Amino acid sequence: MKGLWLEDRKMNFRTDLPMPELEPDEVLIKVLLAGVCSTDLEMMKGYYDFTGVPGHEFVGLVQDENGHPELLGKRVIGDINISCGECERCLNQETSQCMNRRTLGIFSYDGVFAEYSKLPARNLTVVPDSVSDVLAVFSEPTAAALRILDQIQVRPSDRVIVVGAGKLGLLIAQAFKNTGCDLNVVVRRAEPAAILTGWGIRAVYPEEVKGQLADIVVEVTGSPEGFKLSRALTRARGSLVLKSTFAGDVSVNLSKLVVDEITLVGSRCGNYPAGLHALSSGLIQVGEMVDSIFSLDQGLEAIERAGQPGVLKVLIRP
Amino acid sequence: MKGLWLEDRKMNFRTDLPMPELEPDEVLIKVLLAGVCSTDLEMMKGYYDFTGVPGHEFVGLVQDENGHPELLGKRVIGDINISCGECERCLNQETSQCMNRRTLGIFSYDGVFAEYSKLPARNLTVVPDSVSDVLAVFSEPTAAALRILDQIQVRPSDRVIVVGAGKLGLLIAQAFKNTGCDLNVVVRRAEPAAILTGWGIRAVYPEEVKGQLADIVVEVTGSPEGFKLSRALTRARGSLVLKSTFAGDVSVNLSKLVVDEITLVGSRCGNYPAGLHALSSGLIQVGEMVDSIFSLDQGLEAIERAGQPGVLKVLIRP
Repeated sequence: MKGLWLEDRKMNFRTDLPMPELEPDEVLIKVLLAGVCSTDLEMMKGYYDFTGVPGHEFVGLVQDENGHPELLGKRVIGDINISCGECERCLNQETSQCMNRRTLGIFSYDGVFAEYSKLPARNLTVVPDSVSDVLAVFSEPTAAALRILDQIQVRPSDRVIVVGAGKLGLLIAQAFKNTGCDLNVVVRRAEPAAILTGWGIRAVYPEEVKGQLADIVVEVTGSPEGFKLSRALTRARGSLVLKSTFAGDVSVNLSKLVVDEITLVGSRCGNYPAGLHALSSGLIQVGEMVDSIFSLDQGLEAIERAGQPGVLKVLIRP
Repeated sequence: MKGLWLEDRKMNFRTDLPMPELEPDEVLIKVLLAGVCSTDLEMMKGYYDFTGVPGHEFVGLVQDENGHPELLGKRVIGDINISCGECERCLNQETSQCMNRRTLGIFSYDGVFAEYSKLPARNLTVVPDSVSDVLAVFSEPTAAALRILDQIQVRPSDRVIVVGAGKLGLLIAQAFKNTGCDLNVVVRRAEPAAILTGWGIRAVYPEEVKGQLADIVVEVTGSPEGFKLSRALTRARGSLVLKSTFAGDVSVNLSKLVVDEITLVGSRCGNYPAGLHALSSGLIQVGEMVDSIFSLDQGLEAIERAGQPGVLKVLIRP
């Protein structure tokens, strides 16, 4: 089959990939639409040393139900964490943090930038007919954005600053907007500022927030500089949510975290049905965020395009 | 008056210090007993650039009540944060995080390694007659230890590892013991191990916890190495409480915090009456922790002694 292949940090287009081999409980999925995430790009910079088919944002059609007839022909989205079901985290219902997990298109499991992919049946959520492919493909990052609200309580009286208005930042901004908090989103470009304004969300440039202090700050720039700005904007006893993954360490003044009693919250994957629901109900909008849709044959161009500064969501349609 | 004086990171003994000058609301305190904290030692390494009388752990006698007759002649302990009462944090009842605060013996306010000190009357808590000076002088670090339980919920089913068994670590260990959690305290020496064992708390050496994962880890070593070990011991979705302040930054893999969804909690001062109550009621014991008591004339020897590896609480009696 056709698909992208990451090896030695280099992305290749191949036409000779083997079809996914199904283990018990896994179903075969024909990929309808896939989304390029910053993590895919960071893997090419060495964030993870992954060899295989990349890509983890998708909506697809169940082609081989492998013992799960209720799924045959259904349109599905899926949890990217392939869990063991036996470790302490799994037994504690925290399967996304399974200690033996494989991760779709990121770690030890081929992903969705290909004609076909696979996932365990338990990972899948059926997409209602009323939800378009373009909407459904945002389920994974939308769930990740909503995950923050699982972790911290956001009050309508809270001042919140989201630092970064890329693909994930725009989803997070909408998640916070829905809480009724006092929200500012730090942008560096006019395009996301215009999108945010269109959604009724205040967009500000870094110099405009200088000296401000927020109760909750979300770092979603994917850069050490973004962390430094975010830290400076967090009030004493405030919460700083870390949402971006990138290669390399950052130098942190831990004593200042102690003195200011900051809570740093690492935040990863969310609940997929909740993400799908926020999209299908219109709580989170994504139409403005789609930059372009490439065919799988143009997959390398899609990756190239997604890596350009300021480019929002690039989709691949196999 | 006599006292210690910190200037250019150097500790001096002086006999020509002026008596504290009282501003409105401040009362004059004759220091009965003072404790040396690691923060005092870290200031000599450049953690803070403070010039003045150091020292912030004390029990004293109110000598000049300055309009607060109910305090005259009372034995008191005191909140080390001198707050403005007007900033956002003060108005939010978070006076220990006052944005304009001065800090007893640490920042812009002379401390207690002297014959006399002062504090605003509102900072003071009267010590019951039944509580000895030696017990009362531990109120500040005990409050700081208990502060963790203000910030995070500790469940009896939680596995907790306290990394570091110095002065503060031993108090924190007791605070956690009282929650009924599954507790291990990482030590590097036989002496604190023996004290912990005497209290019925499990002491373990670093090599014994290798590969373990705890729900809650408290870093109280005051070193970058201690942070690295603590981080490694924190399970995915666990909490890592930072309790020590020391000079210098630490290199942190923020992406790993995101992927593991760790919550980092900076923790500083606690509630002083709560600290005093834990001591007076016997919930927290300190008798085993007193290394030595020096006179103020021997103040420099006291500081020297407190800086020796493995030495627990050194007290100064003016």
